[in-house]
Amino acid sequence: MNDNGIPYKTYLSENEVPDAWYNMRADMKRKPAPMLDPATLAPVQADALRKVFCDEAVRQELDDASQWIPIPGPVRDFYRMFRPSPLVRAYFLEKALDTPARIFYKFEGNNTSGSHKLNSAIAQAYYAKEQGLKGVTTETGAGQWGTALSMACAFFKLDCRVFMVKCSYEQKPFRREVMRTYGAEVTPSPSMETEAGRRINAEHPGCTGSLGCAISEAVEAAVSREGYRYVLGSVLAQVCLHQSIIGLETKTALDRLGVKPDIIIGCAGGGSNLAGLIAPFMGEKLRGEADYRIVAVEPASCPSFTRGRFAYDFCDTGRVCPLQKMYTLGHDYIPSASHAGGLRYHGMSAVLSELYAQGMMEARSVEQTRVFQAAETFARTEGILPAPESSHAICAAMDEAMRCKEEGKSETIVFGLTGTGYFDMTAYQAFNDGRMGDYVPADAEIEASLAKLPKV
Amino acid sequence: MNDNGIPYKTYLSENEVPDAWYNMRADMKRKPAPMLDPATLAPVQADALRKVFCDEAVRQELDDASQWIPIPGPVRDFYRMFRPSPLVRAYFLEKALDTPARIFYKFEGNNTSGSHKLNSAIAQAYYAKEQGLKGVTTETGAGQWGTALSMACAFFKLDCRVFMVKCSYEQKPFRREVMRTYGAEVTPSPSMETEAGRRINAEHPGCTGSLGCAISEAVEAAVSREGYRYVLGSVLAQVCLHQSIIGLETKTALDRLGVKPDIIIGCAGGGSNLAGLIAPFMGEKLRGEADYRIVAVEPASCPSFTRGRFAYDFCDTGRVCPLQKMYTLGHDYIPSASHAGGLRYHGMSAVLSELYAQGMMEARSVEQTRVFQAAETFARTEGILPAPESSHAICAAMDEAMRCKEEGKSETIVFGLTGTGYFDMTAYQAFNDGRMGDYVPADAEIEASLAKLPKV
Repeated sequence: MNDNGIPYKTYLSENEVPDAWYNMRADMKRKPAPMLDPATLAPVQADALRKVFCDEAVRQELDDASQWIPIPGPVRDFYRMFRPSPLVRAYFLEKALDTPARIFYKFEGNNTSGSHKLNSAIAQAYYAKEQGLKGVTTETGAGQWGTALSMACAFFKLDCRVFMVKCSYEQKPFRREVMRTYGAEVTPSPSMETEAGRRINAEHPGCTGSLGCAISEAVEAAVSREGYRYVLGSVLAQVCLHQSIIGLETKTALDRLGVKPDIIIGCAGGGSNLAGLIAPFMGEKLRGEADYRIVAVEPASCPSFTRGRFAYDFCDTGRVCPLQKMYTLGHDYIPSASHAGGLRYHGMSAVLSELYAQGMMEARSVEQTRVFQAAETFARTEGILPAPESSHAICAAMDEAMRCKEEGKSETIVFGLTGTGYFDMTAYQAFNDGRMGDYVPADAEIEASLAKLPKV
Repeated sequence: MNDNGIPYKTYLSENEVPDAWYNMRADMKRKPAPMLDPATLAPVQADALRKVFCDEAVRQELDDASQWIPIPGPVRDFYRMFRPSPLVRAYFLEKALDTPARIFYKFEGNNTSGSHKLNSAIAQAYYAKEQGLKGVTTETGAGQWGTALSMACAFFKLDCRVFMVKCSYEQKPFRREVMRTYGAEVTPSPSMETEAGRRINAEHPGCTGSLGCAISEAVEAAVSREGYRYVLGSVLAQVCLHQSIIGLETKTALDRLGVKPDIIIGCAGGGSNLAGLIAPFMGEKLRGEADYRIVAVEPASCPSFTRGRFAYDFCDTGRVCPLQKMYTLGHDYIPSASHAGGLRYHGMSAVLSELYAQGMMEARSVEQTRVFQAAETFARTEGILPAPESSHAICAAMDEAMRCKEEGKSETIVFGLTGTGYFDMTAYQAFNDGRMGDYVPADAEIEASLAKLPKV
């Protein structure tokens, strides 16, 4: 069960866990375009951002020069609870595919939030605590990010207010109860507790909510209350920065094994996990020290990289957050309700968007029935039930492994397994029952959405 | 964040993972009493057991002489997917309790089954495959064991038929879908597919099932079909044997850290996880090489050790399985429906029962609201949402740590954290909502149940 002494799982020792995050922007010659103020469409100022986000978060968001940002001691302590995460050699999957490729995956699901989200949640909670704030607000859809933030806030004894999209609140009571167990206050959105929520409830009685609406409520709840700020779980540059811990650990483990990857694959919704996984490898590529194929995988029903436009757009449907220059399908784009695989965000991290525009990485989209087929194969061979999101990366890794088989090449593939699917069994049930279909938006649908991009 | 260089988590390297299971019975001077045939009440013969269980399972069940049983290569390979499991130093919990005690826990929840059950499931599936069988049958209540067996059968490409208690089948669709994703056939019990099920459905229309009924169906489905056998997830000596991997890894890790525990604590339903955790320590104790306090923790609503009788009883409500001499509340005993903490079995492993009768270990019971309070504290400080079952051990470990504080002693406590609670959020919700009560059976209730013990 090993090849040149490579174990099934590689864990770093605690003193090998990185003590600084790596900031890809520092090595980019052409930086991501600046954020714009949603009201004025002028470059946003730190003062304006500080009303919404906590001070250190703003500093990190705007810092495209520092290559390394030290990880604070209390955050490193918390990381010890679930990090280092294992780098796994997928021996069983390789055998099932009968491929000469070597497949590794970095598994971020071994924590109660079930995903990589905790890497940034604990950092953001720490900075809020350090600033003397009372609490933070956020929105959550399926609940992964809300769970991670609840855990982080429990650790630092911060209030945590989560606006959860109402239909998820009702359909996913388990996620809600995990958050409550960690002491978070979970409010179905639209609620009657904010102006935004009351307005939507008045205009659309019986509304079951949307992420855009929940964001508006969470931002309002933060700015209208003394001692609160708003936090976000993906998309932002600071979140990509915190997630670099994934890639840094991966690279240290691969270096220890004497393995240089050929292809690095990650799923992409808002993009933060992918940005984190690829960070040190992209750094080498940006500095001309090494080359890798880097592949983003997105759902065919929400194809921002592969069918979107690289343009300024609102980050949220409610247009309260700053604009970013990014690959976007338009801020009103909502993937078909039949799409069960997550990664539903209309845009993409500005950092990754700029790298993609520069030709530093590839992107592809996959249809959801193929994603769930890959998930089933992976679960049965590798013993981990993957999140649908993560399964996009599994699907692409399997495709690359089969290409290697056809071409007789023993390339090394590394992919990010961002989380587990225990709370996604409704989607698995649809797949198990043969009720799952594929939805690929028509060109006209995307064009109609892109027509609403702001004129900047 | 460390004390004498003890890391937060200790992982063994792959070559330190044990290659044999340890059989406590070999070191017991007085052995567990023999099983009795349910029809004749005479000691059961291997031939009779082989109709129900696969051959190697029967051999291991009856082997009270071999100290070590080699772990087959393919089982060791599978173990690499989720083992070694971490031994965690509970620094954050110690700090929260402000205790001089040192607390460690062995965490078995980092796999898709969510518990230690996989340790035995893969062994039992392997022996069935080796014997050339087509498949196995089993029953499951909440679904933890059924999930573990489904994963094991998927790995060895064995048919897996799970009879799931009907009310769980309907109330826990997520567990059911995990099993189906692993290719298991999940049938709500009572079903129309067995004589036993049809009889119960005819006599009690609308019956929502019980574990006893599901066992009867699973055994019937195994013995009435060519190439099938029945497998069980706890109670049996072979299951305790397979679970010894938990204790062996724990002891190797503690030895490496130079730590000798004072107290070893585990929850006990059927007893297999506790038997596994304590195995090598109890071995030293049986051989007079070392002494440890060993503590079983059970629910106050199902107190077989602390309020049951050490006597021969049926292992199942349906009286189709052999009788064991064990601590039992009577085979008809069913804990109150208000009990949400698991560990609902009426009896206890015969091996542990004999050790308890010999005074080699302690037992105590805890009420469920205290258990969920401990679970909440643990989740918020150590970042893992524990299974209610495991939380019985957490509760007792916290009690011991507080005693150490009162007495000013820095004892070392090791407990088993058998699994995660992601599928138990209905119980957590009752706790979060303040709707959870405690139920302690009256003496008369237990006496009435014990009055039905078979006359042996």
